[in-house]
Amino acid sequence: MSHSDVLKAAGFADAELTGGSLAVRSPIDGAIVAHVAETPASDMPGVIAKAQEAFKAWRSVPAPRRGELVRLLGEELRAAKDELGAVVTLEAGKIISEGLGEVQEMIDICDFAVGQSRQLYGLTIASERPGHRMMETWHPMGPCGVITAFNFPVAVWSWNSALALVCGDPVIWKPSEKTPLTALTCMKIMARALERFGDAPEGLVQLVIGGPEIGEVLVNSSDVPIVSATGSTRMGGIVGPKVSARWGRPILELGGNNAMIVAPSADLDMAIRAIVFSAVGTAGQRCTSLRRLIVHHSIKDDLVAKLAAAYASLPIGDPRDSGTLIGPLIDQASADRMAAMLEQAKGEGGTVHGGGAASGVGEGAYVHPAIVEMPGQTDTVKTETFAPILYVMGYDTLDEAIALQNGVPQGLSSCIFTLNMREAETFLSAGGSDCGIANVNIGPSGAEIGGAFGGEKETGGGRESGSDAWKGYMRRQTNTINYSAELPLAQGVKFDI
Amino acid sequence: MSHSDVLKAAGFADAELTGGSLAVRSPIDGAIVAHVAETPASDMPGVIAKAQEAFKAWRSVPAPRRGELVRLLGEELRAAKDELGAVVTLEAGKIISEGLGEVQEMIDICDFAVGQSRQLYGLTIASERPGHRMMETWHPMGPCGVITAFNFPVAVWSWNSALALVCGDPVIWKPSEKTPLTALTCMKIMARALERFGDAPEGLVQLVIGGPEIGEVLVNSSDVPIVSATGSTRMGGIVGPKVSARWGRPILELGGNNAMIVAPSADLDMAIRAIVFSAVGTAGQRCTSLRRLIVHHSIKDDLVAKLAAAYASLPIGDPRDSGTLIGPLIDQASADRMAAMLEQAKGEGGTVHGGGAASGVGEGAYVHPAIVEMPGQTDTVKTETFAPILYVMGYDTLDEAIALQNGVPQGLSSCIFTLNMREAETFLSAGGSDCGIANVNIGPSGAEIGGAFGGEKETGGGRESGSDAWKGYMRRQTNTINYSAELPLAQGVKFDI
Amino acid sequence: MSHSDVLKAAGFADAELTGGSLAVRSPIDGAIVAHVAETPASDMPGVIAKAQEAFKAWRSVPAPRRGELVRLLGEELRAAKDELGAVVTLEAGKIISEGLGEVQEMIDICDFAVGQSRQLYGLTIASERPGHRMMETWHPMGPCGVITAFNFPVAVWSWNSALALVCGDPVIWKPSEKTPLTALTCMKIMARALERFGDAPEGLVQLVIGGPEIGEVLVNSSDVPIVSATGSTRMGGIVGPKVSARWGRPILELGGNNAMIVAPSADLDMAIRAIVFSAVGTAGQRCTSLRRLIVHHSIKDDLVAKLAAAYASLPIGDPRDSGTLIGPLIDQASADRMAAMLEQAKGEGGTVHGGGAASGVGEGAYVHPAIVEMPGQTDTVKTETFAPILYVMGYDTLDEAIALQNGVPQGLSSCIFTLNMREAETFLSAGGSDCGIANVNIGPSGAEIGGAFGGEKETGGGRESGSDAWKGYMRRQTNTINYSAELPLAQGVKFDI
Amino acid sequence: MSHSDVLKAAGFADAELTGGSLAVRSPIDGAIVAHVAETPASDMPGVIAKAQEAFKAWRSVPAPRRGELVRLLGEELRAAKDELGAVVTLEAGKIISEGLGEVQEMIDICDFAVGQSRQLYGLTIASERPGHRMMETWHPMGPCGVITAFNFPVAVWSWNSALALVCGDPVIWKPSEKTPLTALTCMKIMARALERFGDAPEGLVQLVIGGPEIGEVLVNSSDVPIVSATGSTRMGGIVGPKVSARWGRPILELGGNNAMIVAPSADLDMAIRAIVFSAVGTAGQRCTSLRRLIVHHSIKDDLVAKLAAAYASLPIGDPRDSGTLIGPLIDQASADRMAAMLEQAKGEGGTVHGGGAASGVGEGAYVHPAIVEMPGQTDTVKTETFAPILYVMGYDTLDEAIALQNGVPQGLSSCIFTLNMREAETFLSAGGSDCGIANVNIGPSGAEIGGAFGGEKETGGGRESGSDAWKGYMRRQTNTINYSAELPLAQGVKFDI
Repeated sequence: MSHSDVLKAAGFADAELTGGSLAVRSPIDGAIVAHVAETPASDMPGVIAKAQEAFKAWRSVPAPRRGELVRLLGEELRAAKDELGAVVTLEAGKIISEGLGEVQEMIDICDFAVGQSRQLYGLTIASERPGHRMMETWHPMGPCGVITAFNFPVAVWSWNSALALVCGDPVIWKPSEKTPLTALTCMKIMARALERFGDAPEGLVQLVIGGPEIGEVLVNSSDVPIVSATGSTRMGGIVGPKVSARWGRPILELGGNNAMIVAPSADLDMAIRAIVFSAVGTAGQRCTSLRRLIVHHSIKDDLVAKLAAAYASLPIGDPRDSGTLIGPLIDQASADRMAAMLEQAKGEGGTVHGGGAASGVGEGAYVHPAIVEMPGQTDTVKTETFAPILYVMGYDTLDEAIALQNGVPQGLSSCIFTLNMREAETFLSAGGSDCGIANVNIGPSGAEIGGAFGGEKETGGGRESGSDAWKGYMRRQTNTINYSAELPLAQGVKFDI
Repeated sequence: MSHSDVLKAAGFADAELTGGSLAVRSPIDGAIVAHVAETPASDMPGVIAKAQEAFKAWRSVPAPRRGELVRLLGEELRAAKDELGAVVTLEAGKIISEGLGEVQEMIDICDFAVGQSRQLYGLTIASERPGHRMMETWHPMGPCGVITAFNFPVAVWSWNSALALVCGDPVIWKPSEKTPLTALTCMKIMARALERFGDAPEGLVQLVIGGPEIGEVLVNSSDVPIVSATGSTRMGGIVGPKVSARWGRPILELGGNNAMIVAPSADLDMAIRAIVFSAVGTAGQRCTSLRRLIVHHSIKDDLVAKLAAAYASLPIGDPRDSGTLIGPLIDQASADRMAAMLEQAKGEGGTVHGGGAASGVGEGAYVHPAIVEMPGQTDTVKTETFAPILYVMGYDTLDEAIALQNGVPQGLSSCIFTLNMREAETFLSAGGSDCGIANVNIGPSGAEIGGAFGGEKETGGGRESGSDAWKGYMRRQTNTINYSAELPLAQGVKFDI
Repeated sequence: MSHSDVLKAAGFADAELTGGSLAVRSPIDGAIVAHVAETPASDMPGVIAKAQEAFKAWRSVPAPRRGELVRLLGEELRAAKDELGAVVTLEAGKIISEGLGEVQEMIDICDFAVGQSRQLYGLTIASERPGHRMMETWHPMGPCGVITAFNFPVAVWSWNSALALVCGDPVIWKPSEKTPLTALTCMKIMARALERFGDAPEGLVQLVIGGPEIGEVLVNSSDVPIVSATGSTRMGGIVGPKVSARWGRPILELGGNNAMIVAPSADLDMAIRAIVFSAVGTAGQRCTSLRRLIVHHSIKDDLVAKLAAAYASLPIGDPRDSGTLIGPLIDQASADRMAAMLEQAKGEGGTVHGGGAASGVGEGAYVHPAIVEMPGQTDTVKTETFAPILYVMGYDTLDEAIALQNGVPQGLSSCIFTLNMREAETFLSAGGSDCGIANVNIGPSGAEIGGAFGGEKETGGGRESGSDAWKGYMRRQTNTINYSAELPLAQGVKFDI
Repeated sequence: MSHSDVLKAAGFADAELTGGSLAVRSPIDGAIVAHVAETPASDMPGVIAKAQEAFKAWRSVPAPRRGELVRLLGEELRAAKDELGAVVTLEAGKIISEGLGEVQEMIDICDFAVGQSRQLYGLTIASERPGHRMMETWHPMGPCGVITAFNFPVAVWSWNSALALVCGDPVIWKPSEKTPLTALTCMKIMARALERFGDAPEGLVQLVIGGPEIGEVLVNSSDVPIVSATGSTRMGGIVGPKVSARWGRPILELGGNNAMIVAPSADLDMAIRAIVFSAVGTAGQRCTSLRRLIVHHSIKDDLVAKLAAAYASLPIGDPRDSGTLIGPLIDQASADRMAAMLEQAKGEGGTVHGGGAASGVGEGAYVHPAIVEMPGQTDTVKTETFAPILYVMGYDTLDEAIALQNGVPQGLSSCIFTLNMREAETFLSAGGSDCGIANVNIGPSGAEIGGAFGGEKETGGGRESGSDAWKGYMRRQTNTINYSAELPLAQGVKFDI
């Protein structure tokens, strides 16, 4: 399908695609596919005020009713799965299956959040005083700013929105400047859900399009108590303290530098498939992409040889072709950065297999994925590069492997391939991986929405999606109710007037 | 008992009390009771390194065994309750019952944490993939810096330490410069517990004494992943962003500006007793002290008159005397600030009842508590003053009362006195109090340790003590374990190489 | 719509409605609307074997995938809401709004169960031994027999099925002999969901139609580890011990004798509306129907007078008419029992208002609801009669009222109407209502699916629907995993060989 | 120490040990060590009435205060650990380390229960109706009958009592007729805790001594809502249905027939140590004793040979000797049953290693532990014999091994020894072990108190000790509170009068 057919199918009118100040390129061929309107910074106070207004109404709507809106969103997403997936492919360059997978993740989180809408469990707690009752309740917080990155242009918004909406919080979304069309498509789908829902307050779900200056308004406004930001460590390192400084709550999902340990007992066939998908899927542009391979010396040469062979046969090309496994990088700057990092790695003693521009594929930033054997965990290895580079290092003992795994500033995802239960369990123990995600016999990427998603250290510490991540969108209140006619003090304190 | 007898009973040798650079005064009489040694800033790297070393060992000690140390601490606290309580009285000026109550709170949290040591519950979670298992586990984080204030010189340390130790984290404590003796006493008690425990790593629980410059080392060190700081909003507003900026986790317990709504149906006798204790207990120097009274117009004059009468009869004096209910402020600067705020309130139209220095009591900063009828919620009312000032405002409708309650920048504690269930429930609902603590028919202060303690907005958002506050001391890890021989991807993504 | 139109709309072919041995009557007019086929007892072993076979496959299907079936069931129920509701009206005689409400409850539980399908949370638990990990997991149990009653002919099945299916358990449903058509309609809807789902094992959801002899096969078969039975205390008193005796797990939802306490401070208008709905809704045939009114003496006469007036104006008649609020009893035997109980109550000193057959309404068992003022809680009052009889008793103190409320053998639902928070809280405290459900300012009936549904004492102790009721459909397993090379024993036991 | 010295140290006066109708023998030498008084059946109504009376007071004591009693019990147990352990050895014949281990388990559960006393968490739940609040609370149930067996004469009581007391339930304990002295010793310790506690109601913890006829009173009394019974499947098969029939709640901990699967990858040294401890510890008289060994054919002969060698060297004898690992069976009847079962096994094709009376040890029922190689899982293997018999069977595939493990009527404990993570995880999966306890690389016995203890199938389904086992001692109540002035119905039902 042509770009314009994809956009037409997604419901865009021509007027929406022309005349705006923001040029949108497709990484598939570098073509400008639209000029969309940007939100003037001067509009932001109004946007936030509208969200605050919506909050006052929405917080008192019963949560299961709020869940109904999210259920309808899930239904509309199911209905529009192909169309939205195609826009993801168009704008982010993902292969079709991954584009659809991302939409499926949106659907899954909607289903999950609907279930949460009858839970949002607090606790009732035994009180030490007679005639007293204690409980802990969770209440809506207020508008939630959601700042997302190009690489998951829609899923991350849905993770945040599905939970925030169920939790009673309006959402203001600032997508990456590189992917406004997927965002606009989501808003069309959301509009259909809102329409069916009927009486949601205006301003409940808003989209703002533009650059850092409008993101900054969200970051600095004390009327936006929650700011969920996904992107680079550099960005998060600015956003987090700013939000904290004005007493807001940041939810940060920042860089990863994800490793796999391959132990001697690993099922190598499985490991290879996992490595290739994790390292080159989405052209290495997932925050959970595999970037470091820590392989036992006894199998390292064999594994690298097999990987190099597998890499050589990977179909690179137009992500709309069903056979393609590696689509383009998001832009040429990314390809340039990749090339520079490979050079840098060489300078540190690395041996590079692959890499370089893929010829004959088209106008986009298509590259050959690279495997780089490194003599040690150098600064380059410690840096997250958003591209399909896989650094390989050897190890002798599991302790050494774990030390390598933990020896980077990021702490998102990690995994081990082993059939040995002692190794597997050690990797998951207090002395094992220091990441927010640690897997056994599956790659670092591709989390299910039922678990909490996020990481430690420079990854920012935020958690989204499953488990009790919903608590990030609510405020906790501890209540003690005295229904007696006495007034005892806690801890037996006496104070008789 | 004389100051020196108190300190002797607490186990101090003379050498500990003399020769140091930090002069310690008792607010009871302003006397200098000791000169204790300060921790040179140059020692801090070693302190932190020792804590990191201890962490490596302690994190692998099974949590129930870690709990045993906390159980022994609880036993030692029980044994030393009177002695420690007396030092609290000496150094913080609390009346005896409150000093003992604070120690009781330490004991309670130890008991609670021991129970937690066999829990620290994560989740097992249903996975969407066949032959896969998901779970969420909680692991130790690393050294926890604990910065405490003079007004709860020991309880806050124990809240943090009992949980941190059970969670596998070493503790570095920086107490207020005004209360080093209580801290030293705690370390003596802890030493006895450690002695009985036997094989805890060195450096597991450390004390550093000094001013902001050593606190700053904790705040800035990336080897101290958790910093729990209790104190002023000003302090927290600096600490929070700094800790965030270096990817640490702040736990902030900052200022409160706690209100009580008194509804027409309130049991006035109970309300008065609650008001007096909450407003003048600890001489108004609790973070949860009652500072604002929001009274229905129909009962306001009556209530103020009764309160003024009650205030007039409160015994002010030496906190060691069993009849005393109001001891001294921590220092003369506090008394001066109180006087200044009363002047300021007058300037805003307030009518002041009480206030002023209490004569004939001694050398300390003894003051008469003040009730101030205010025409509205002025800037002065919105400011936390650590002294026994109670601002009184009237209201007509519950909505108006709640708006007043929420109309300050702080969000710690709040309460309503009413016998009407609709009012009580509304106060606790999503549209009610915006504080971390909201009570019915008890004052804002005196929380039980079973609930989570902390507040919203400028109070900093941290939670300590009960509920799942322990999670603040651990890192969460999401695990997916594939025990099949297949490698399915989440969300049905296909990627066949 | 005529009966046959309703059945046609629900998808019945003529052949399904004729030739069977079980005559089905509509309580609306007493007409026989179908003769449906019964399941021969000799078929039961095959049915159970098929369920066991299905279990072996279904238990290994990932729970979120199992949830997808329940999600599809919810979608199909939404699509067929009117049609299924109409069959409920036809066969159980419920008014339209209640018929639809029952289907809505099915839909709600499906949404809820879908969310659960990514949870089914067990715990990870701190182990006391180094190199050990503990967790608790929940696994499917096996086929679940579901025995339901006529009064909730479809909702109860869906409560059980939605959870059982998500939990990995096949379902064998034996509905009341009085309501096989609603059951057959559900199976048609389920078939559509199964069709869309694709690869569910055969025998996953089965229906058996007939009398106690086939229910008994379920009760006695050790291949049916769970038996959920809803109905009379008499039935449950037989089923429970039998299932226990063969080591199965009974989930019993038996009789209620639900009371409302009306305190002097109650909002009487609200109370009256709640009383009328609770007492006469579904013609008093809900297990949660209000049967006992415990009214403060000061307002008793007034309340009875108002109630009698309200009762007099209630539209009794064909439940298909939109104005009708009271439809027929399920059959004439019910009406006869009602009349007998009213006589008995009179014999015990009761004063009866209302009661008796409603004339001019049609051929069904239409009755006037009755209010009976009783001098005390007699044996008649202590007996659950499935008909619109409301016994009224007076009280002086709340303790007395609570004693009356608790003074019956049943323990399902209860409520208090009061605006006094002390009374409300006391009613909910350890010394308050002894029922599984206790409400404030709403009637005893009409529970939300988010809470656990069920009761104590002769109500049988089972819990269904929300909270952690899903645990009733799974088995719990405590796991300790030793990944060390040591073998320490718990509790420090030494046993060195 | 002589028997009489042990009893003296435990605080017995001579009068307590003489003149009673129940002769108590020590299995160590078969000597009668006391004649203790039995509780006449005619006293039972009074006992139960006293417990009911105590309940009315105790249920309103705040749970943390109830926890204080349990904390004191823990302290007293710590102080009396040696003395109580010695009585366990005297009366149950356990070796010293196991006697002390059992007391340690009592101490652990006390610590754990104290923590629970500030939890007893229910839920607050999102309601679907505006102006409504939902929660779930847990309330005390009433007196709890605790029927225990000789083999854990004190720990099982403490598991039940610590939780029951914290949960607000009085306890009536009927110990085994074979172990009244340990029970009496516990009551002395409890008395000291009660004394220190101060104001517990009389009758809170009661002991009744005697045979089945007094147990039956507990089983049949509707004033004893909870009956926790530990013992044989035969006993539980009677108790369970009886308690159910009168609407009580049975907590059954019945027979086990616990297996270990030894896979080819197992660490054989560890496995052997685990097998020996599990199979012969407590002379094979634990409910979790290892009774079945399912060994991969490739290692079976080797393992059996090593086990036989290990068995041959085990020190059998007086359990008071520090070197002893195998003490006596409880009585000669046990030894006779063991001999008979070995004969029966031979008749089914079994090859017996060991077994038979141990000569030269003393007057007690000292036996050689037996290993029996079986050609298949015969009826004898499927029967629990309370003696040190270990049946060994071979297997080829893990599926086969799991089928053998699950192919018995009991479902208490199970384990696998393997270093292969796929095998370990499969064993713990939905298609793996069907027991309540399933371990990896540790034996089936020696559970930690943090996990829920109990089993499936004929083991009775009860759970005690950790996790949420406390819920077994409380009743759950679902509350909906309407604080609005509206009366909406759930599921959108309309019913306007």
